[in-house]
Amino acid sequence: MSKNSRKNFRNNWNVEASLIAKRTHNPIRSIVENIVVEPNPDKQLIALSIGDPTTFGNLKPPKEVIKAVHESIDSQLYNGYAPSTGYKEARQAVAEYSSNEFTNVQFKDVVLCSGCSSALDLCITALAREGQNIIIPRPGFSIYRTLAEGLGITVKSYNLQPEFGWEIDLNDLEAQIDESTAAIIINNPSNPCGSVFSRDHLLDILQVAAKYYVPIIADEIYEHMVFPGKIFCSLASVSTEVPILSCSGLTKRFLVPGWRMGWIIIHDRHHILNEEIRNALNCLSQRIIGSNTIVQGALAQILKNTPQQFFEDVLLTLNTHALLAYELLSKISGLKPIMPDGAMYMMVHIDLPSFPEFDSELQFVKTLLAEESVFCLPGQCFDYPSYMRLVITIPKHLLEEACLRINEFCYRHHAKNLNNINNSVIVN
Amino acid sequence: MSKNSRKNFRNNWNVEASLIAKRTHNPIRSIVENIVVEPNPDKQLIALSIGDPTTFGNLKPPKEVIKAVHESIDSQLYNGYAPSTGYKEARQAVAEYSSNEFTNVQFKDVVLCSGCSSALDLCITALAREGQNIIIPRPGFSIYRTLAEGLGITVKSYNLQPEFGWEIDLNDLEAQIDESTAAIIINNPSNPCGSVFSRDHLLDILQVAAKYYVPIIADEIYEHMVFPGKIFCSLASVSTEVPILSCSGLTKRFLVPGWRMGWIIIHDRHHILNEEIRNALNCLSQRIIGSNTIVQGALAQILKNTPQQFFEDVLLTLNTHALLAYELLSKISGLKPIMPDGAMYMMVHIDLPSFPEFDSELQFVKTLLAEESVFCLPGQCFDYPSYMRLVITIPKHLLEEACLRINEFCYRHHAKNLNNINNSVIVN
Repeated sequence: MSKNSRKNFRNNWNVEASLIAKRTHNPIRSIVENIVVEPNPDKQLIALSIGDPTTFGNLKPPKEVIKAVHESIDSQLYNGYAPSTGYKEARQAVAEYSSNEFTNVQFKDVVLCSGCSSALDLCITALAREGQNIIIPRPGFSIYRTLAEGLGITVKSYNLQPEFGWEIDLNDLEAQIDESTAAIIINNPSNPCGSVFSRDHLLDILQVAAKYYVPIIADEIYEHMVFPGKIFCSLASVSTEVPILSCSGLTKRFLVPGWRMGWIIIHDRHHILNEEIRNALNCLSQRIIGSNTIVQGALAQILKNTPQQFFEDVLLTLNTHALLAYELLSKISGLKPIMPDGAMYMMVHIDLPSFPEFDSELQFVKTLLAEESVFCLPGQCFDYPSYMRLVITIPKHLLEEACLRINEFCYRHHAKNLNNINNSVIVN
Repeated sequence: MSKNSRKNFRNNWNVEASLIAKRTHNPIRSIVENIVVEPNPDKQLIALSIGDPTTFGNLKPPKEVIKAVHESIDSQLYNGYAPSTGYKEARQAVAEYSSNEFTNVQFKDVVLCSGCSSALDLCITALAREGQNIIIPRPGFSIYRTLAEGLGITVKSYNLQPEFGWEIDLNDLEAQIDESTAAIIINNPSNPCGSVFSRDHLLDILQVAAKYYVPIIADEIYEHMVFPGKIFCSLASVSTEVPILSCSGLTKRFLVPGWRMGWIIIHDRHHILNEEIRNALNCLSQRIIGSNTIVQGALAQILKNTPQQFFEDVLLTLNTHALLAYELLSKISGLKPIMPDGAMYMMVHIDLPSFPEFDSELQFVKTLLAEESVFCLPGQCFDYPSYMRLVITIPKHLLEEACLRINEFCYRHHAKNLNNINNSVIVN
């Protein structure tokens, strides 16, 4: 018999998951998994749902990036452990890449992470604790919620305004802030909106944050991904007071999301975050012990050698796709696409009263999948019903085909045609 | 004026780190950072402290591994996001690599992670919650403590017994288990001990776990790394009842720790962990969204094509080093090395009464660094004072030189010589 009293001990195999695990929930996954609809077997599936620009093989990283990674491997210098925040040279390369006339980033301000998700995870985990809240955009990417709620951090949302280029409703933002607000998350350019904030709007946002002394986590994974003629302005470059943790990475701009190379940049002109938050990020980075060293070894070459033309070509493609989809979808009665200025998405409003068979946009996208084999993410995935999100990175002919099928679908299901179609069915 | 009442709001910039960040603490780092000793400038620094087999360049991954990664990049098939638990083919390859006559692993039992640290993080986070405890080995690797205490999980320790080949004191293990014990961590082969448990000892451990219905997290990152004539037996291969989450990866055996390719294998013959813990690991894996896809794309080739001779050569080298260090250190009065059976470490007992100038092993290793430029990790780093840990992966001539310097150091500082030396100094 044991030295322990067996009283109160488990007396069977009942292994329960932790609270964190139970609370970590990916809304997109749940919603998509519940769409148990088979695509139309007579039509090729066109997935406009996947936020991965590499899925269709039409967008590839530049050859300079591939070369840099080959060289990194061949050097045999990057097999060992890196410091948990990354090799100094790699951090220095990110610092230079992220510096401009307004922001002077030092290597010590850079924390390399396993992708931008991990960067966001570290920032949220460092700044907010159970019982506090963070404020996120609506519509917005669900990862913020997944990360925060897992840790018992409450999520509040501020509204974006589709009628004003998805700018933030500043009164709403201000109204959400309370004494337990640990951070505001600003996503610019935006997933799912494809919107790009002006310098003036960023200044207005900063004013709200400054008034309540709330730091900002800037999710700028789509930085510089703005269409010709548009301007990207980073939040840090215009902030004079508010400390900002900027999250970015190679993921989208260099078309290598699977490589998991992201980073945090600590922008803190007035040493507000020192040393508490720097230490926090440093300690938290040790939970995983760094990002892949092959990519770290290539990072300086990747950031320095990728030609400007590569970025311009990708953005020209995305802009062409956006214009095409916008043009085709604008003509469809009952839909209202909102032209993006950057990133790789387009939000489309679904006027549900025009489609009386569907009681929600979820029902709309499910039926669209079943009948036309076109799959768009329902707005619910972004806490924004009555919209659907299209990914505009897919090959042009598929995008065009998808829009034509959406057109036929909407025509067929539009209120004004339903009776006619039903009548004609009856007549036949 | 805002719509909010400003009462109780922050009225200055006081950004506090979260509890998790404050509680996440790496003991090795703190101890090493407090060693503010300069090495002897007249002697080349020999670091026997770094658990990274690639540091000195004498141990390199096999050419098959390098080739597989080049091919993965060139295929351009692995730039995109993988599922958060990994590509099916990569998981299948790990399943085959980890199956044997006793364990039949399926791809669905494998969760790929960003290194073995991330695998351990997921397992601990999935199984234990704030207020519960996990039980870890003493001496033991500090990452378990770092990961658990960050989440408010209490850490209790069971003793290993140096006099019995570092086997677990089973009575002590049993005594540590209480009604709040969520998991036992077993590290075999061991860091820092280099010990390898026998099949019988594993069965004894499992009996304790089964008696109290406590699942086991098996840290087997040094699996198969046992010296010629020794046998590695995985915990899962002998467990008939106790569910086991095994953590391993490419890190040590394939000499690529920086690549961050680790995995969890769910061994659960009686479906005790289903579906609760599988779901938990799945959900938690979405916080980071997977491990590097370049390595995932190469994983099947790496695991299948690496020749047995490569492993044997590395182990022969490590065994030769261990025997050399053991022979040299055994002759030193006041030291007692314990011969490892595997992994890449050796623990050495320091008989502190023999060295009256030093009140702790920390003082011993600091002075050794200052005088001889040889750096070993003090036992405190592993919750085990009076010992120091040597890494045996460094080139043979450096290891030999280090042992000779340790010999001179010990001679100089040994109680029986202190008076003589002091006298001789006085005489001179």
